[in-house]
Amino acid sequence: MTVNKSRGHNSIQAVLLLLTCLQQCQSSPHRHNSEPLLGVFKEITKYSDIAQQIIDLAVYGKAQNRSYERLALFTDTIGNRVSGSKNLDLAIKYMYNALTQDGLENVHLEPVKIPHWVRGKESAVMLQPRNHTLAILGLGSSVGTPPGGIEAEVLVVESFEELKKRASEAKGKIVVYNQPFVSYGETVAYRASGASEAAKVGAVASLIRSVTPFSINSPHTGWQWYQPGVAQIPTACITIEDAQMMGRMARRGQRIVVRLTMGAQTLPDVDSFNTVAEIRGSKHPEQVGCFLRLLRVTAHSVLISFDALHSIPLCCTALCCVTMLCFAGRGVACPVCCNCTSSVIRPHSGKVVLLSGHLDSWDVGQGAMDDGGGAVISWEALSLIKHLGLRPKRTLRAVLWSAEEPGGVGAAQYFQHHKANISNFDLVMESDLGTFRPLGLQFTGNDKARAIMKEVMKLLASINVTSLERNGEGTDINMWMQAGVPGASLHTADQRYFWFHHSDGDTMSFQNPEEMNLCSALWAVVAYVVADLEEMLPR
Amino acid sequence: MTVNKSRGHNSIQAVLLLLTCLQQCQSSPHRHNSEPLLGVFKEITKYSDIAQQIIDLAVYGKAQNRSYERLALFTDTIGNRVSGSKNLDLAIKYMYNALTQDGLENVHLEPVKIPHWVRGKESAVMLQPRNHTLAILGLGSSVGTPPGGIEAEVLVVESFEELKKRASEAKGKIVVYNQPFVSYGETVAYRASGASEAAKVGAVASLIRSVTPFSINSPHTGWQWYQPGVAQIPTACITIEDAQMMGRMARRGQRIVVRLTMGAQTLPDVDSFNTVAEIRGSKHPEQVGCFLRLLRVTAHSVLISFDALHSIPLCCTALCCVTMLCFAGRGVACPVCCNCTSSVIRPHSGKVVLLSGHLDSWDVGQGAMDDGGGAVISWEALSLIKHLGLRPKRTLRAVLWSAEEPGGVGAAQYFQHHKANISNFDLVMESDLGTFRPLGLQFTGNDKARAIMKEVMKLLASINVTSLERNGEGTDINMWMQAGVPGASLHTADQRYFWFHHSDGDTMSFQNPEEMNLCSALWAVVAYVVADLEEMLPR
Repeated sequence: MTVNKSRGHNSIQAVLLLLTCLQQCQSSPHRHNSEPLLGVFKEITKYSDIAQQIIDLAVYGKAQNRSYERLALFTDTIGNRVSGSKNLDLAIKYMYNALTQDGLENVHLEPVKIPHWVRGKESAVMLQPRNHTLAILGLGSSVGTPPGGIEAEVLVVESFEELKKRASEAKGKIVVYNQPFVSYGETVAYRASGASEAAKVGAVASLIRSVTPFSINSPHTGWQWYQPGVAQIPTACITIEDAQMMGRMARRGQRIVVRLTMGAQTLPDVDSFNTVAEIRGSKHPEQVGCFLRLLRVTAHSVLISFDALHSIPLCCTALCCVTMLCFAGRGVACPVCCNCTSSVIRPHSGKVVLLSGHLDSWDVGQGAMDDGGGAVISWEALSLIKHLGLRPKRTLRAVLWSAEEPGGVGAAQYFQHHKANISNFDLVMESDLGTFRPLGLQFTGNDKARAIMKEVMKLLASINVTSLERNGEGTDINMWMQAGVPGASLHTADQRYFWFHHSDGDTMSFQNPEEMNLCSALWAVVAYVVADLEEMLPR
Repeated sequence: MTVNKSRGHNSIQAVLLLLTCLQQCQSSPHRHNSEPLLGVFKEITKYSDIAQQIIDLAVYGKAQNRSYERLALFTDTIGNRVSGSKNLDLAIKYMYNALTQDGLENVHLEPVKIPHWVRGKESAVMLQPRNHTLAILGLGSSVGTPPGGIEAEVLVVESFEELKKRASEAKGKIVVYNQPFVSYGETVAYRASGASEAAKVGAVASLIRSVTPFSINSPHTGWQWYQPGVAQIPTACITIEDAQMMGRMARRGQRIVVRLTMGAQTLPDVDSFNTVAEIRGSKHPEQVGCFLRLLRVTAHSVLISFDALHSIPLCCTALCCVTMLCFAGRGVACPVCCNCTSSVIRPHSGKVVLLSGHLDSWDVGQGAMDDGGGAVISWEALSLIKHLGLRPKRTLRAVLWSAEEPGGVGAAQYFQHHKANISNFDLVMESDLGTFRPLGLQFTGNDKARAIMKEVMKLLASINVTSLERNGEGTDINMWMQAGVPGASLHTADQRYFWFHHSDGDTMSFQNPEEMNLCSALWAVVAYVVADLEEMLPR
């Protein structure tokens, strides 16, 4: 997950929550809200057998541990998959093939343009008061240093407020933020905008204490954003340990000098894909718009073909061409190397429940937790439903996003491309806070939708994951929720999530097969039942 | 701490424990044992005011947080201090000066010879089934690889038993031990002898899963021992994560190839010192034997002078000369660069309670937990007692060991040098399992001594650290305990000790000032009261 996924309420949500609470205090919410819903409650009850079949298959049956094994094979085979990397191309190809071989329907790729930031070689050494190598990870989108690095005295601050007070001391220095960890949502502000705030007061670089409550001298990277009109200075994260040590040294009045060397650079955006697989709805299937079928990925090119209603063979490997055709939704001449034109692309029009996680990760660890697990349980949910021969009324669509880490880039383009059909999106789901022991869901929707979802969650009583919290969240689904579509995110016992997040510690070693079974069962039951109810969730 | 400090019982201790239990079952131990001790129990009760003064000073008074601040300044200033390193020389100098400036008595250095193993540059890359850099730390005493490294197929095993069964597969391979963590005492066997066991079946190198129950992709180093007559192959630790990943790959039948490159080498032993400070006993002071006073440490030499009963100026900086003089206990001509001879050195003869920790560490992290904390609270205990103007009947001696990590090397030489006076050692204490929240002590001694120690521990009731467990332990004091001297080690709530142990995570960030106050108070109260009782502890 990236910076946008703070756990805090935004102000609109907070006001809505307050109004809802006031309303509930003034009346009997159960009688008031549920009476018109008795019909749908009764309808939901009828799914108890199907829900138990899904649970049995995922937790005790043939699919037991399958999501764990799928995730292990995927991440062991590909490794990490940062936006713009060859590994992300390989991951998309891997998943395209896996989803196809699993027999899912309508497996296809939807093209997106994504950032391509590369880390390069990087190092930081404290030269005074003693020689000490700092463990660092440059932050995504950071500029590099000159080849010889930047050697400068350090100013250690614990907050933006302290930086403002000591602004006159910052000129020409490397600002070290030794901010305490309060919560990810609050503390990530230092990673997101620490560089620009330091640059505003004349700093030449900034080093940010990693945004985690725990460390074994482990740096945690992440995206950062330069503010417009502010000098762009190199920025990296350091460990809690080194930030605290420099804090102690500064309090003792010791002069600290650091040499920071970063080869980071931002290359032009590259072509990538959101990876999609479906179980088509029996009554409201998706009408196919523009699909791309992956044929071959090589080191430098991705060979694809159209697979639209009117299949169009692609005559070249130029992705810009395909992207233009698809996004424009109309026939245009390929400007690169051929003269093919597509037929008119139909807009998407079916009704859909969307399940998702993101395929990209950071360039450290295996990206198992963030967010291989979310991607795999979205696949697994469809596998479970297919295995049982179920087909809901509305389409179930798994979307494995590209380039979430730079700020939900793949998902934003998906939203732009599909928002014309927003009324057809029944529920958008995302798992991006780890596939640890599930507690239930975090849900955003109106009171009626919430009441219905509470009934759906009761179907999971046998595995004790019935919780329905507020504030569905997820960088990749936020736009839909903000536009009024009900949204749900997986809610897990994720106390250690930020211990591993964006670090070399994000590996399979902290994934648990039994916990992933439960996550998959929850994901499949909710998606299937919501997609099969007579009516879409109210909004 | 090093390998010898397993928490398991050795067989002799186990038998003694069994006999003690049987004895206790057959009689009323309290009446049986304590009646002859009523006098000493009454004597101990009289120390309640003094104990509370020490506690008040350490926990609430002027010395509050002082042990933490001392440890922070020491480790921030020096960094880590591996055996044979310049940093260890600097640490000894630092402590010598600090103990002197603190006004402690008889501050001196006792020469020892210690191992000098250097890590050199090292790396490991998995080349098949995909390219992946492994986080490694070569193990202490390992040989290096040829300059180009060793590239070989991997054999993954989970135990020595599996290695034996698959011995025919090991020839020419790199053996990866993916042993589960059971306990440090049990699992450290893989680090200690994994290389030799692998060499016996023809392996060319071995990689050991780090001996820790938890990891953020963190390798944990430590000493290892080659078995006589077995080929010496390079060996390093890898992370839990990488070991488990290779385990999964091997189970899938994938061929794994690793290139290991290590520049490790063992250089000749070097001169070092155990660092000593005292509060001399009022009735049974130590008679000075051979002391060395540190004058100056430079990068390549240590300038010292004798400070014995008959002070002998040293005419050269050759430590071999000094060491020979001191250890031989007689005048010999310096074989290096001068012809000085010492007078006859008197053996030590005073009565003493010894408090200790070790100054050396591994060459990663700060060595704050292992064992800066133990060294500092041994110093701090003497500071507290001095500050209160207390002087016990017997001498309190803080010894900050050199070269514990290679297997208690400094302490072993101390034992050889002082064992002639074993009857004068009242109690030997060591803190080397972290200075976390103290619970009490682990104690080795006979029933009477234990009964007395239980009474002493009651003096700590106000800070709730009265526990007295069995099995005093510590690489540096084991020899004394095995020879019959009562021994005590600090017992703390150390659940996370092995998370950081021998890794870059061993820093000040997991030291807590309040916890260290309590450790220091406990250490000082026990040492002072035992040293001041009319009689030494029975043995």
